[in-house]
Amino acid sequence: MKKGLVQIYTGDGKGKTTAALGLALRSLGHQKKVCIIQFMKKGSYGEFKAIKKIPKVVIRQFGTKKLVRKGKISKIDINQAQWALKSAQRALLGQYDLVILDEVIVAVHFGLISEPTLIQVIKDRSKKTELILTGRKASAKLKDTADLVTEMKELKHYYKKGVKARLGIEY
Amino acid sequence: MKKGLVQIYTGDGKGKTTAALGLALRSLGHQKKVCIIQFMKKGSYGEFKAIKKIPKVVIRQFGTKKLVRKGKISKIDINQAQWALKSAQRALLGQYDLVILDEVIVAVHFGLISEPTLIQVIKDRSKKTELILTGRKASAKLKDTADLVTEMKELKHYYKKGVKARLGIEY
Repeated sequence: MKKGLVQIYTGDGKGKTTAALGLALRSLGHQKKVCIIQFMKKGSYGEFKAIKKIPKVVIRQFGTKKLVRKGKISKIDINQAQWALKSAQRALLGQYDLVILDEVIVAVHFGLISEPTLIQVIKDRSKKTELILTGRKASAKLKDTADLVTEMKELKHYYKKGVKARLGIEY
Repeated sequence: MKKGLVQIYTGDGKGKTTAALGLALRSLGHQKKVCIIQFMKKGSYGEFKAIKKIPKVVIRQFGTKKLVRKGKISKIDINQAQWALKSAQRALLGQYDLVILDEVIVAVHFGLISEPTLIQVIKDRSKKTELILTGRKASAKLKDTADLVTEMKELKHYYKKGVKARLGIEY
């Protein structure tokens, strides 16, 4: 049995969630079972409309349609994130080949879930399950638990040139 | 009509191709037309097995099954890359909403196609088409032509710990 590793995609650049989704797509192409758990998200993003058409992918969204902002955390945001973490814990027991915890790192950064609890969930997982964590602001401690850490670094961005977020590209 | 922008995903880290594929997936979810042209690749990677199940995506692979190595470039490698570039030129005339030139930057770096020619193809494209270029070693000049440049930076990698590439994750 091959060991499933822990991957982190972090940094301020683009492509963290999309890289994880690309990996989901790759795994699904090899008939693997994939579960995607999204923290702080609710809504029909383009990639999910598409990925749902592929058999065997399970997607669970935990959050509200309102954007979570640091310093303006509501009780419901915390509850949703806690449920997401419980869902993650169950998904990591061995029924999936790949589990993606999308934006979980931001949920930690915002204080919606505790970092020690998340690290424990990572450690307790079925060792055959590959785990991907995404989100800005990964702490040194969280990076230490990962086998692979990739930082997406923004070198140049058109937002700064005044272009607005576009349907089908940014969301 | 919204202007399609030019995005580059470069750097030595993981996630360049997968981020582009994630964006393809996102666009397809919004009923957009997507064309993926792969340089120096031939074979049934997991992501393509999966993405082919989604309607409206066009994938063209140009290359051989042999890995292209710098200093060991064959005539067939050059020919394939030239065909890929011609295919890209046509795909950029306006029939697609999103065109992905996967590994095109490495093809330039290896000297399979010329950078001025690629830049000209980028400039001549239909301005409504979003264009994504991926690959290590983007030159400063190429970055200048892009609206968005994201560098994937490897902070930590398990290859260095002696784990081999795994089916459904790395390829």
